[in-house]
Amino acid sequence: MSLTTPLRGVVPPVCTPLDSRGEVDTASLARLVEHLLDGGVHGVFALGSTGEVAYLTDEQRATTLRTVVEAVAGRVPVLAGVIDTTTPRVIDHAGTAAGLGADALVATAPFYTRTHPEEIAGHFRRLRAAVDLPLFAYDIPVAVHSKLPVALIRELAEDGTLAGLKDSSGDEGALRRLLVELGGRDGREKGPAPRFSVLTGSELTVDTALLAGADGVVPGIGNVDPAGYVRLYDAARAGNWALAAKEQERLVELFAMVDAGPEAEMGRSSSALGSFKAALRLLGVIECADTAFPQIPLNAESVALVARRLRGAGLTPVR
Amino acid sequence: MSLTTPLRGVVPPVCTPLDSRGEVDTASLARLVEHLLDGGVHGVFALGSTGEVAYLTDEQRATTLRTVVEAVAGRVPVLAGVIDTTTPRVIDHAGTAAGLGADALVATAPFYTRTHPEEIAGHFRRLRAAVDLPLFAYDIPVAVHSKLPVALIRELAEDGTLAGLKDSSGDEGALRRLLVELGGRDGREKGPAPRFSVLTGSELTVDTALLAGADGVVPGIGNVDPAGYVRLYDAARAGNWALAAKEQERLVELFAMVDAGPEAEMGRSSSALGSFKAALRLLGVIECADTAFPQIPLNAESVALVARRLRGAGLTPVR
Amino acid sequence: MSLTTPLRGVVPPVCTPLDSRGEVDTASLARLVEHLLDGGVHGVFALGSTGEVAYLTDEQRATTLRTVVEAVAGRVPVLAGVIDTTTPRVIDHAGTAAGLGADALVATAPFYTRTHPEEIAGHFRRLRAAVDLPLFAYDIPVAVHSKLPVALIRELAEDGTLAGLKDSSGDEGALRRLLVELGGRDGREKGPAPRFSVLTGSELTVDTALLAGADGVVPGIGNVDPAGYVRLYDAARAGNWALAAKEQERLVELFAMVDAGPEAEMGRSSSALGSFKAALRLLGVIECADTAFPQIPLNAESVALVARRLRGAGLTPVR
Amino acid sequence: MSLTTPLRGVVPPVCTPLDSRGEVDTASLARLVEHLLDGGVHGVFALGSTGEVAYLTDEQRATTLRTVVEAVAGRVPVLAGVIDTTTPRVIDHAGTAAGLGADALVATAPFYTRTHPEEIAGHFRRLRAAVDLPLFAYDIPVAVHSKLPVALIRELAEDGTLAGLKDSSGDEGALRRLLVELGGRDGREKGPAPRFSVLTGSELTVDTALLAGADGVVPGIGNVDPAGYVRLYDAARAGNWALAAKEQERLVELFAMVDAGPEAEMGRSSSALGSFKAALRLLGVIECADTAFPQIPLNAESVALVARRLRGAGLTPVR
Repeated sequence: MSLTTPLRGVVPPVCTPLDSRGEVDTASLARLVEHLLDGGVHGVFALGSTGEVAYLTDEQRATTLRTVVEAVAGRVPVLAGVIDTTTPRVIDHAGTAAGLGADALVATAPFYTRTHPEEIAGHFRRLRAAVDLPLFAYDIPVAVHSKLPVALIRELAEDGTLAGLKDSSGDEGALRRLLVELGGRDGREKGPAPRFSVLTGSELTVDTALLAGADGVVPGIGNVDPAGYVRLYDAARAGNWALAAKEQERLVELFAMVDAGPEAEMGRSSSALGSFKAALRLLGVIECADTAFPQIPLNAESVALVARRLRGAGLTPVR
Repeated sequence: MSLTTPLRGVVPPVCTPLDSRGEVDTASLARLVEHLLDGGVHGVFALGSTGEVAYLTDEQRATTLRTVVEAVAGRVPVLAGVIDTTTPRVIDHAGTAAGLGADALVATAPFYTRTHPEEIAGHFRRLRAAVDLPLFAYDIPVAVHSKLPVALIRELAEDGTLAGLKDSSGDEGALRRLLVELGGRDGREKGPAPRFSVLTGSELTVDTALLAGADGVVPGIGNVDPAGYVRLYDAARAGNWALAAKEQERLVELFAMVDAGPEAEMGRSSSALGSFKAALRLLGVIECADTAFPQIPLNAESVALVARRLRGAGLTPVR
Repeated sequence: MSLTTPLRGVVPPVCTPLDSRGEVDTASLARLVEHLLDGGVHGVFALGSTGEVAYLTDEQRATTLRTVVEAVAGRVPVLAGVIDTTTPRVIDHAGTAAGLGADALVATAPFYTRTHPEEIAGHFRRLRAAVDLPLFAYDIPVAVHSKLPVALIRELAEDGTLAGLKDSSGDEGALRRLLVELGGRDGREKGPAPRFSVLTGSELTVDTALLAGADGVVPGIGNVDPAGYVRLYDAARAGNWALAAKEQERLVELFAMVDAGPEAEMGRSSSALGSFKAALRLLGVIECADTAFPQIPLNAESVALVARRLRGAGLTPVR
Repeated sequence: MSLTTPLRGVVPPVCTPLDSRGEVDTASLARLVEHLLDGGVHGVFALGSTGEVAYLTDEQRATTLRTVVEAVAGRVPVLAGVIDTTTPRVIDHAGTAAGLGADALVATAPFYTRTHPEEIAGHFRRLRAAVDLPLFAYDIPVAVHSKLPVALIRELAEDGTLAGLKDSSGDEGALRRLLVELGGRDGREKGPAPRFSVLTGSELTVDTALLAGADGVVPGIGNVDPAGYVRLYDAARAGNWALAAKEQERLVELFAMVDAGPEAEMGRSSSALGSFKAALRLLGVIECADTAFPQIPLNAESVALVARRLRGAGLTPVR
């Protein structure tokens, strides 16, 4: 579905199910897409951090995106992550994504190298010029190790380089400044960047981001409970903030699964992504809960914790 | 006013007006306290980071706290910052603060040294045992360079060591996890820590923190516009989230004064604290806008920016 | 030249000359290789950070490595950087590098993602198993944002996973601990890891790293003055530490060219890599001094500073 | 002993022995000073980070400095740490230190607050003007969370504000740039800052710092083995770099005691300072090995590790 209007709503970053050999399990991935659409999501984001994009070879990335585009079949827009170190490499991914039918691109600032805001601006501008798809900036300092400045995002929103922002910075103060500068929650339509979508990637603060004027959310744990985030979003849009907050609190408790893997034994990606996949397997959505190498698998005790979190949030494991 | 119930509401961290020799201007400080109480605040926090506590000698700290306590005259609780590197030094400040009539203490984790969560727990426990006043933990990683873990705060809330938290971490996701663990926005009264106050120090996200279940706010820029924060708080308490958000947006624009001083020429403390004091001087509340040495003063152009921010937010400079 | 003995000596990370369209200038690259071999270097490292590997597409990486291997023609070993976010992607690059005739591989820990030491160990072990070439760990926290722990390097040295380390951490204390644990400067041959090469990537502390027992150096500015680093290395090997230090001091002054580009206007990669390329162009080695997009080019004033640094170090610009 | 010439040699940061109630054990402290002077040290540094200055009350700081000055009795210069958050507070400490007979002051940049280089320069200049004692800058980013820029140190060296630098930054590359800018290892006497002492605080890289032109060292573990550092220093001064490196390697192995306390159970200060004190107690120099609260004590197993490190380095525990 082409992205002609600002993107709003719940747009989960789709997990990439793998089989036990580490290859993309396209059948499970198609089922996962269906699970998300059944939940009422307004778009999907393939090849994001939650999709283990940093662990997938170019071939696996292509398989993943092709599978998602086919499974979605135009029902909602498909955003595609084009994650790599610098502009020339990102443009290569962007060309591939366009060819595979992505409706929009999501790119970070350059990483690995030490970059200046002017260089980041050049990066997004050249990328936008090179591949004719709406472009979202992905602000994720925990991965990229720099924060996109508010002034820079605003500049690239106003000149039409960016169609939107996925803000996974966790810096809600900066997000609020941006939203106010873009016209505030009431004035977004009349503001200087009327078609600019602000999506939060912080799944614990969605009700409050929506109150602040954000357009939507890209929640990793939305893979597990897409319907919950859609309920949260609908309550917020209806101005029922108490209900939105109540739903958010349930999701905060569900989200605690990300700590299922012991910190002394594995990285936080292994624990968080492993818990999402374990949950999806327990719910019968995907076949195998393996994360990509060299991430460390959750042990049985951790999976039991995940199951407990599911039940605590009212979801029912089927295995 | 002794602190017998959980602290809720707007509790500004009081600026410390200085004269041109760098000494505490007690007359201006008393006027500032009156300005805050006129605005309807529910408490005041003397000797916080905004109060330039790190720049005041022990003698100046005592003068400041004595002046605030006298000016407040029991109308609202007075919290006192006891900011120093480690437990023995903090206990010395705490004894002084108790003697001067503070109603509660606010302490950070140890800094300068590299500290473990167990050591931080010991720090707060010994401090609580040493001086019999309600104790607030002050989570301010930008100054202390460590973040108080959610689990630690919860433990110290449940065992009664802490009466509350002032969260200036900017980590709204962690704050939400804490609030949910403490019982959620509806269940705070019935939860495991019924008398634990959670106050945000992030002045840009107050409406959303209140929606998430926070009890109040400690806004630096509340020195300039206390009535605005009280209106925001009242709207939130009444469940009028749209009105709260509108007030918050006005305050976000006012807050932009903190960048009045050019980043290439001065530190961010100089710019932010200098802008608050310039605003207070423009409003006729304090006599002299100097910040403590070695902070760099704002130039005339920066002060003009501050004046513009005041007018933009509907406040009227009198000089 | 296959790498049958521990690598020792000066192994510059080869710059990748580009033409004005941003494509690899193979003629200039071949001349640069000759310039390095004329200077007496003991190996070359293609596709390192100095080689702008993070900015080169896969096709450009292949062109670069092919050109270097052909130009070197077996006279010294060619190390190839296989820089990407995680194991599966790095293995793809490693297969390509092996096919193009690299004599050894250089890989960082995973980046973009948050990784645990156990995961890093798995990463290097699987990479070593997947492609049968000697493997060097590249410790570069400024790019990767984690530091390889001394204990981990030692473990991977002792079990034969790693043939060596390129240490660009700047943490000389940790480097010394590693060298002592590996047997100390006298005992390296008899120690537990007799064939493990420790190469410093810190071009300002080469004399001292050699005194501490390092085997060699991978100096970015060795592109500009390879003969200087070879003299430094020879003096150190001969035990003439005063002479080594004197040569090092000359190279420290030369190295100051990395600050030629103003910090307010460009990233530090743009400035440093731009200065190396400007120097190589001034010396007549390469045709065009452009760095890869989105790096910002040095202006004429900055290039004049580079020329002054060259002359100050006794090198003669030819244009 | 007044500091009329540049300070050179071994200047340990004196540990502060405490009794079991946490008070300064002046008898043990006097014995420790004698132990250091017996080892041949060229100065002592009281109230540094190793001296737990951040944990001592003002009264305890005074007791400590008074005891050290009396015990030294003019045989070597006594440097005194004046560690606090900002200029006004540091000046208070400096006045006290001068009154107690310190020969020089050692101050960090402001901390807790966010500071600009211009503000740091003002800080050191006002401090130098306020108290007429030679002033050393203490560059310790692990505590202060900013690094003193090379250009700033050079400026303050050249205008006479600073008598020297204690560099605990661990950034040997920056140290080398500074030393070269100050005239290089041969030219220090003729250079622009002929009386400026550069002392490294990095005890693992002393031989190499001296090769680079440093004037001396402030080694924490020099409390335990002062004679070892004096031998290292003498070998370096005699140009016997192989012998200096051999002594350094022995001290690197001794230094490994700093990891005696398990990382999961205590902060790195607790472990390092606890190991120094445990070693001093095992050697019969001090009575009680307690560190200041809230540091966590080493358990018996950790103390056994310390004893093993002592024996491995040829030192003999007497208890």
